[in-house]
Amino acid sequence: MSDRVVLAYSGGLDTSVAIGWIGEATGAEVIAVAVDVGQGGEDLETIRQRALDCGAVEAYVADARDEFASEYCMPALKANGLYMDSYPLVSAVSRPVIVKHLVAAAKQFGATTVAHGCTGKGNDQVRFEVGIQTLGPELKCIAPVRDLALTREKAIAYAEKNELPIVTTKKNPFSIDQNVWGRAVETGFLENIWNGPTKDVYEYTDDPTFPPAADEVVISFERGVPVALDGKPVTPLQAIQEMNRRAGAQGVGRIDIVEDRLVGIKSREIYEAPGAMALITAHKELENVTVEREQARFKKTVGQRWTELVYDGQWFSPLKKSLDVFIDDTQKYVNGDIRMELHAGRATVTGRRSDTGLYDFNLATYDEGDSFDQSNARGFIELFGMSSKVASRREQNLDED
Amino acid sequence: MSDRVVLAYSGGLDTSVAIGWIGEATGAEVIAVAVDVGQGGEDLETIRQRALDCGAVEAYVADARDEFASEYCMPALKANGLYMDSYPLVSAVSRPVIVKHLVAAAKQFGATTVAHGCTGKGNDQVRFEVGIQTLGPELKCIAPVRDLALTREKAIAYAEKNELPIVTTKKNPFSIDQNVWGRAVETGFLENIWNGPTKDVYEYTDDPTFPPAADEVVISFERGVPVALDGKPVTPLQAIQEMNRRAGAQGVGRIDIVEDRLVGIKSREIYEAPGAMALITAHKELENVTVEREQARFKKTVGQRWTELVYDGQWFSPLKKSLDVFIDDTQKYVNGDIRMELHAGRATVTGRRSDTGLYDFNLATYDEGDSFDQSNARGFIELFGMSSKVASRREQNLDED
Amino acid sequence: MSDRVVLAYSGGLDTSVAIGWIGEATGAEVIAVAVDVGQGGEDLETIRQRALDCGAVEAYVADARDEFASEYCMPALKANGLYMDSYPLVSAVSRPVIVKHLVAAAKQFGATTVAHGCTGKGNDQVRFEVGIQTLGPELKCIAPVRDLALTREKAIAYAEKNELPIVTTKKNPFSIDQNVWGRAVETGFLENIWNGPTKDVYEYTDDPTFPPAADEVVISFERGVPVALDGKPVTPLQAIQEMNRRAGAQGVGRIDIVEDRLVGIKSREIYEAPGAMALITAHKELENVTVEREQARFKKTVGQRWTELVYDGQWFSPLKKSLDVFIDDTQKYVNGDIRMELHAGRATVTGRRSDTGLYDFNLATYDEGDSFDQSNARGFIELFGMSSKVASRREQNLDED
Amino acid sequence: MSDRVVLAYSGGLDTSVAIGWIGEATGAEVIAVAVDVGQGGEDLETIRQRALDCGAVEAYVADARDEFASEYCMPALKANGLYMDSYPLVSAVSRPVIVKHLVAAAKQFGATTVAHGCTGKGNDQVRFEVGIQTLGPELKCIAPVRDLALTREKAIAYAEKNELPIVTTKKNPFSIDQNVWGRAVETGFLENIWNGPTKDVYEYTDDPTFPPAADEVVISFERGVPVALDGKPVTPLQAIQEMNRRAGAQGVGRIDIVEDRLVGIKSREIYEAPGAMALITAHKELENVTVEREQARFKKTVGQRWTELVYDGQWFSPLKKSLDVFIDDTQKYVNGDIRMELHAGRATVTGRRSDTGLYDFNLATYDEGDSFDQSNARGFIELFGMSSKVASRREQNLDED
Repeated sequence: MSDRVVLAYSGGLDTSVAIGWIGEATGAEVIAVAVDVGQGGEDLETIRQRALDCGAVEAYVADARDEFASEYCMPALKANGLYMDSYPLVSAVSRPVIVKHLVAAAKQFGATTVAHGCTGKGNDQVRFEVGIQTLGPELKCIAPVRDLALTREKAIAYAEKNELPIVTTKKNPFSIDQNVWGRAVETGFLENIWNGPTKDVYEYTDDPTFPPAADEVVISFERGVPVALDGKPVTPLQAIQEMNRRAGAQGVGRIDIVEDRLVGIKSREIYEAPGAMALITAHKELENVTVEREQARFKKTVGQRWTELVYDGQWFSPLKKSLDVFIDDTQKYVNGDIRMELHAGRATVTGRRSDTGLYDFNLATYDEGDSFDQSNARGFIELFGMSSKVASRREQNLDED
Repeated sequence: MSDRVVLAYSGGLDTSVAIGWIGEATGAEVIAVAVDVGQGGEDLETIRQRALDCGAVEAYVADARDEFASEYCMPALKANGLYMDSYPLVSAVSRPVIVKHLVAAAKQFGATTVAHGCTGKGNDQVRFEVGIQTLGPELKCIAPVRDLALTREKAIAYAEKNELPIVTTKKNPFSIDQNVWGRAVETGFLENIWNGPTKDVYEYTDDPTFPPAADEVVISFERGVPVALDGKPVTPLQAIQEMNRRAGAQGVGRIDIVEDRLVGIKSREIYEAPGAMALITAHKELENVTVEREQARFKKTVGQRWTELVYDGQWFSPLKKSLDVFIDDTQKYVNGDIRMELHAGRATVTGRRSDTGLYDFNLATYDEGDSFDQSNARGFIELFGMSSKVASRREQNLDED
Repeated sequence: MSDRVVLAYSGGLDTSVAIGWIGEATGAEVIAVAVDVGQGGEDLETIRQRALDCGAVEAYVADARDEFASEYCMPALKANGLYMDSYPLVSAVSRPVIVKHLVAAAKQFGATTVAHGCTGKGNDQVRFEVGIQTLGPELKCIAPVRDLALTREKAIAYAEKNELPIVTTKKNPFSIDQNVWGRAVETGFLENIWNGPTKDVYEYTDDPTFPPAADEVVISFERGVPVALDGKPVTPLQAIQEMNRRAGAQGVGRIDIVEDRLVGIKSREIYEAPGAMALITAHKELENVTVEREQARFKKTVGQRWTELVYDGQWFSPLKKSLDVFIDDTQKYVNGDIRMELHAGRATVTGRRSDTGLYDFNLATYDEGDSFDQSNARGFIELFGMSSKVASRREQNLDED
Repeated sequence: MSDRVVLAYSGGLDTSVAIGWIGEATGAEVIAVAVDVGQGGEDLETIRQRALDCGAVEAYVADARDEFASEYCMPALKANGLYMDSYPLVSAVSRPVIVKHLVAAAKQFGATTVAHGCTGKGNDQVRFEVGIQTLGPELKCIAPVRDLALTREKAIAYAEKNELPIVTTKKNPFSIDQNVWGRAVETGFLENIWNGPTKDVYEYTDDPTFPPAADEVVISFERGVPVALDGKPVTPLQAIQEMNRRAGAQGVGRIDIVEDRLVGIKSREIYEAPGAMALITAHKELENVTVEREQARFKKTVGQRWTELVYDGQWFSPLKKSLDVFIDDTQKYVNGDIRMELHAGRATVTGRRSDTGLYDFNLATYDEGDSFDQSNARGFIELFGMSSKVASRREQNLDED
């Protein structure tokens, strides 16, 4: 049997060409793998057929939208995963679910190598290859753009020469990646970081400058995960889709940052993640109500490390798993409702209620019925400040000498 | 000589009554200390005269606005100090500057005790008393409301009986603290955390729902501190004031959270901090451009601890000072301009430029002229993923057994 | 029914007197609770009888040694719990198990209050009372020494006057607490921190200066817990006891430090923990062999926070539980054998082997058969050092200007 | 002018051969650079002459022992730098000082490339090359063993053929690196991690099993750095040398661990660092006496990150510098004397005294004269435990439902 390569296949020009390109360069048979993570566009059946028409010996397609939402986006929500406080890990969480299917396909079809379409200077190559190394340590990796000199120009020429069933349009000025958790846009004039984004950059969100009337939503959570919107039960996927629609209509979730890539360079990135950003905002406030102070403070440290690891392609690493069990333990009581107003680019929490909350009106109130014993404060302050006081006395004594 | 008490004096009913109340309860002479940190309201001369009219033996007043902006707000900006990712430490940074003046006044006038108007269940009592313990370890602290049973009702009766020159209006439904860095509102119907804030809660910000036309501003920083707005040089105080005005007009900087107090309870807080929030947003993005990745990642941990310490009243602690020198060292190259659009509650960075930045177009670009050598990626990925790969091989070997 | 108080009872003078003292001061009935955590001394039946003879209405005794070893010492071992890198939390881990029995006894006998023998300046009062607040939020706490003015002198006088069946010897110069995990000694001439400890301070360890011949032991672990010594199966309690004996005979595990107490002061402490220190040393090295690098690095942070929490009396806090699930997840593969030489105060690992280890001879070796591909190094180094290199180039460019 | 290469030159076989080998492989002229960091062996003049005899066009030698001790070892001491709690960074701190001289020599002699003798699977290649990238971003790096196929066998053959003035002995079974801060030994039969080290592994330390009489030393520190031994002033270099001698005679400072290398593999390492380990032990205890609790707790986190960075070759990185300023700030009061007993492999602190300490006998003592007000404890405990108590009440309420 020939050597076999599974290829992460999008249906677009580059990966359609890669089917033949890899075959010619390596002599291997190519199996195309297309995974639906909510990126929209053509249906899976069309993509499968195109892969076969382009020379793939097999085509593996999977609707992974529910799996992606439940097992990849929800952990990110529970971690409040925002890289550099801003980026909701849109591409970073989708790579592992694609990797899982790539490795499954490699096993199913007896492939020894996995191919992907990334360049050699981004994060995604690392996320693919570290993921593949981890789930399939015996598999090799190849990236035609990076390793087999497959440029855009060569791809167009190849497609025309071989009459591939794919439209070879002029290159989009931007490099785009999208899924149900959000959308990432880079390159082009955005590489000048003094340039502001233009309107054509956005697709998931409407312009927040001219919003429709404000939209109020009540999001219900159980154990840190949304389970209902305005009282109507939803799956994780539905929660994200519905919030993408409603928050997107208000221009919520546009992000524009200079970001530290794993490969050591800074790059300019535009993201849109209306559903993700609205859900994370709601989730954080529900945690404020339901998670104990010291647990919350340490969870921030855990969440930051989780976010770095996932950004850095370490989804399947031992540490990531251990951080997940920590985070899950903190979500036990993250139950309740968040009322949120969506308007003009803002997702503002206006109310919260929880049967498992730690907010205690009788302790907090300044009204009658206060159950807080203020006489404890003096002793607390005295001992809480003791070590600073002793240190300060030292300093003053030394100054006097 | 009688025992002497310095009293943190606001000019309002409670502390005006406290002058006599402390005198009667303790036999001590009271020196009123009023510090202007940009809270607005009456001028210092009026306040000084009222203190004397209410029976203070001395009145010490200080315009500390520039000192407060430069030495207290700017460190908070450099730390991106947001407690629970949200609260810009409005009251927390003002207490230490007031403490400094209280302790200076105590030394100047030979007082043995410092009095403040806080209750026994908030954070500010801790901030005052730990600060005072630290700067003046020999000073005692007293809080008439907490320790001498001075209630609102008793205060009104006392003021009327003694004909104090102060209007005894009906109590404001809210408890408010404000200064140039922001404004804090609590209690009243906000104690029901399902209630949204009403319009009358706000004073520093206009309603973002009906904003004026968008306002574009260019903020210039040197070593992490704003030095010009739209090219016009500003002091730290002017930068905050001007941004309060412009961002406030757009409804930027409203915050509504359930917060973990130091005394172990959760409370509902509303804040307005238009200038602080806009400046922090700009500062963070300029850091993204100018601070090296690992330095930036660890600075987050440092900033979180800094924020907790300042929230917890440990401004003068040894650790706070050591964190400050770390932070200052990271700000060495935080120079440059941030262009920001203020509109409808949003402060959005649209451009950034820096002569000391680390963004390298030639490394980042996908265009021609790229100086990034993509052939390094394979070796990097192999070794970067090595330890996870070895761990994963273990797991698979054990599963097979 | 009278009010009832459960008293943490040791059988010694102070708590024997406290039975009557509390009764007289409060009018309550006293139930004595004695918990065996391996502190040695009299048997539980003798202690029970003395409690009743001293006036207790009930006596509750529990042999909690196995429970203590398995559920309190083993988590400390898995966390490598060493406060300030030195103190194996001897008293800190015993307080929660005693609290558990105190609260159980309070429920069983209908008590509303729990009493303990601690002073007002140590850590143990906090550990007892925070534990009791947490497990029994409705229970009150009382400490006769701290709250009811029960001094040593008054205790002797009371015992003599009431002819209590207890020998009132001269006070031991030291304050001692001991259990199977170790022994703590403080006060007396040790309060002068320039003084070295004298020989009479020690009881669990022989003088390491004149040791017997070296003793080699092989400790086998499963999931981070010792399960056999020299091939002979042991329970956690047996592992600790046996290692106390063997490591103690070699003078292993003497600790002498100035320590930061929770109440804000520094104190001088002597500890002996031969078994604990030898087991922790072995456990750490087995982790070196079996835990992945990033997991190990973050586990240190988790272990440090775990240790601080336990030291600070927060055993039953939500954060402590979440840290435990993290730690347990990291112990999944901490299986294997550690060979250790015990001699002259040293516990030295000399060999380690594990079927679930990550040490890979073929990757590590410099001999033939090396499976490590050295050609990956160049690309790795280039990208690993990239962000520092870019930062450094900035600095040099600016220096040249 | 020919291209020029500076070579890190030890005087041994491999680097002596590398002079000609590089010349033949690249056509470049080779400048040999030898840096004395206390590794012992031949004098610098002998080494310089051999380099020239082997074909170097220039030889640059530097006695960097004082520089190394003061500017590289002392920061490691202040950080208590122990990688994985064990390894005092022996090679890791020496690489940067050698890099500094290599880059200086490259500038002085107009070289474009730096060569070093490391293999492709260790840490030192990363430390050399990341350091060189950082200090001389325009310099290229080359490693003959890794990049030019220079094996041991080829080196011997080359030396014999070219009659190089170097003895070509049989290969030492171990790979060794040493300097004044310690000595590292790896490979050979140690690669079987169940094997214990044999006596011939050690050189800096005598066997602790048969020690001479105990040796007591008083180490005096100023700002975290040793300044006198037994009252006699010493430089940092002298302090390390003298402690190497005295602690080494007692067998102090032998380390045997399985270690996580930066390149992702685990390796077995033996270290000897008698002076470093004794000094770190003393320094840590002096910090216990002189550093405030919260500062000390956070310094551990900083020290851990510092240690990881230095181990990982990031000595010249921006974060490392910022961590240094934090650490230096904490050392301001780390002054005083530590009395230590060196015996049989143990370095045991027996006394400490400091004029700038925070240990306060009057606060700590249980004797008369106690200045600690125990009545503060109740209020402290109540509020310190409040958030856990509220969380626990929630759990119990939910359990009852």
